[in-house]
Amino acid sequence: FSRRGMQTVTMIPGDGIGPEISNAVMKIFEAAKAPIQWEERNVTAIQGPGGRWMIPPDCKESMDTSKIGLKGPLKTPIAAGHPSMNLLLRKTFDLYANVRPCVSIEGYKTPYTDVNLVTIRENTEGEYSGIEHLIVEGVVQSIKLITEDASRRIAEYAFEYARNNQRSSVTAVHKANIMRMSDGLFLRKCREVAENYKDIKFTEMYLDTVCLNMVQDPTQFDVLVMPNLYGDILSDLCAGLIGGLGVTPSGNIGANGVAIFESVHGTAPDIAGLDMANPTALILSAVMMLRHMGLHDIGNNIQNACFDTIRDKKVLTKDLGGNSKCSEFTDDICRRVQDM
Amino acid sequence: FSRRGMQTVTMIPGDGIGPEISNAVMKIFEAAKAPIQWEERNVTAIQGPGGRWMIPPDCKESMDTSKIGLKGPLKTPIAAGHPSMNLLLRKTFDLYANVRPCVSIEGYKTPYTDVNLVTIRENTEGEYSGIEHLIVEGVVQSIKLITEDASRRIAEYAFEYARNNQRSSVTAVHKANIMRMSDGLFLRKCREVAENYKDIKFTEMYLDTVCLNMVQDPTQFDVLVMPNLYGDILSDLCAGLIGGLGVTPSGNIGANGVAIFESVHGTAPDIAGLDMANPTALILSAVMMLRHMGLHDIGNNIQNACFDTIRDKKVLTKDLGGNSKCSEFTDDICRRVQDM
Ligand SMILES: CC(C)[C@H](C(=O)O)[C@@H](O)C(=O)O
Ligand SMILES: CC(C)[C@H](C(=O)O)[C@@H](O)C(=O)O
Repeated sequence: FSRRGMQTVTMIPGDGIGPEISNAVMKIFEAAKAPIQWEERNVTAIQGPGGRWMIPPDCKESMDTSKIGLKGPLKTPIAAGHPSMNLLLRKTFDLYANVRPCVSIEGYKTPYTDVNLVTIRENTEGEYSGIEHLIVEGVVQSIKLITEDASRRIAEYAFEYARNNQRSSVTAVHKANIMRMSDGLFLRKCREVAENYKDIKFTEMYLDTVCLNMVQDPTQFDVLVMPNLYGDILSDLCAGLIGGLGVTPSGNIGANGVAIFESVHGTAPDIAGLDMANPTALILSAVMMLRHMGLHDIGNNIQNACFDTIRDKKVLTKDLGGNSKCSEFTDDICRRVQDM
Repeated sequence: FSRRGMQTVTMIPGDGIGPEISNAVMKIFEAAKAPIQWEERNVTAIQGPGGRWMIPPDCKESMDTSKIGLKGPLKTPIAAGHPSMNLLLRKTFDLYANVRPCVSIEGYKTPYTDVNLVTIRENTEGEYSGIEHLIVEGVVQSIKLITEDASRRIAEYAFEYARNNQRSSVTAVHKANIMRMSDGLFLRKCREVAENYKDIKFTEMYLDTVCLNMVQDPTQFDVLVMPNLYGDILSDLCAGLIGGLGVTPSGNIGANGVAIFESVHGTAPDIAGLDMANPTALILSAVMMLRHMGLHDIGNNIQNACFDTIRDKKVLTKDLGGNSKCSEFTDDICRRVQDM
């Protein structure tokens, strides 16, 4: 059943600290009166017919109906041949765009201020194709697969994102001087799409140059779009500039509104269950989710409450420099959001 | 002819500001009484039989005899199909290890202090294999080639480097969670080689995690070893931490003592010939070269003189925050090195 005016979201709490930080989000959503009802699902890899790895059917069904997921960290399987659950989720729902806004957080000191950029990563192909060969003993090839369709799709996503989020420039990140055909194709599609967005400034830059410029002055960047592996690298680098994966949100976007928002830090098994975890990354991912669902006001309220708590410095988890528990940090945000 | 006790080095001044900064180095070497005689060679791409691109024979011959080269920036050709001269040089002399020490420079302020690490990049294969295919219209594959031999060779180089340079740890950088076969092979060879160097601590880390940790606290790293593209990215990132490519040296090392040292910044055509260029990167590359040739004392003297000039802040080129000309900066170093 669905309560009147409520939208259903599939909640995948995940492993380790996942349940604690998911609880934090659910508590804050209640305090904010977010019109969301949660459908909790566990994700463990199961093997279907022919040995194919898949996510549990009840999670798949929930997502097929709700279209929107919020996900905590999943532990990485160690068994050989066992895929990353994160990758399997992205693949199952064809979540082709990985979006990570990196914005400096007031009151949380890092060597950088005024960072305000978004990495947009192609999430379905490239170096993550999974195609590898043993040519002869001691010689291995991995295949980076770049297609016109996926390149155009991600480029269009990036420009649409820029336009819809009042951002003024898109930078295509590439190594087309080395991978002339594959990155060349990616870059060509970006250039073509740029033609249709004359209101957005388009630039291109080598990945190595981006990395160098990024650590020297990240404020020069706005929206960055790139193939899969480059996005993996740059999004982590940028997260580092503003305080790490504990404070950085992430969204995986597919077609027709389907999306999974997730914190991309680890499961932190050493502190799991101890009420010590920092839920900020999942909270901010949930804020991205609310905006994606058109619930901007509630999203803004929760984000403001979270940033106010951090700026205030009185109730912080240990990794943020304080002594408070996850539940105390959460309650402080709830209190603020109730007053908004 | 070769003057008594002198060793010959092939000098490739390069394009743009290349001749100016090469002159700076030659002047400083003279002041330091370095027992080096220069054989100057130009490098432009020429096409041999069958259309194969090659470097000019007189440069090849010089390098075959001298075994050691010092190289300024080369302009990147724009014509399609024309290879990068930098890559062609690495290939021609099988310079399999690219070594870039990144050390904080006293007096040159960046957000980071006490950076002291070395990136060691596999320089011959990986994503730089040059093998690419059009599968069908709109679908392209680039091949990342990883071999056991090249992986073992670079791992051995990294551990030898660590041991010979009083460094205590080597970190293998990889994405073997994604490229299980190729990066897996690279990582396996690193692990095997590590077994023979029990005096050096060995760790492994995902590339994305390295990038994140690097911008949060670069002092945790010492020697890093990695496949070709990851080295391209990380070496630029690290250069950014200490002030950019204008102050970062680089060496390309092959078998049997063959090596080319180079500044990896651009040709800066806008200031070429104006006596404004900063020669620091080429000077520090020349210092690496002197050490490689066993001329440690002279190398140390030149490095100290260069760092003294920068720390002193009185005679700096514009990019270093001063108003002096390249020749004035050079003269200041010469004056100091003469007094040593
Ligand atoms: C967990 C891992 C497979 C994943 C990746 O490499 O994409 C992670 O680093 C990420 O960025 O979400
Ligand atoms: C000039 C270019 C081909 C080169 C590379 O990609 O290796 C450069 O970035 C470098 O790091 O030396």
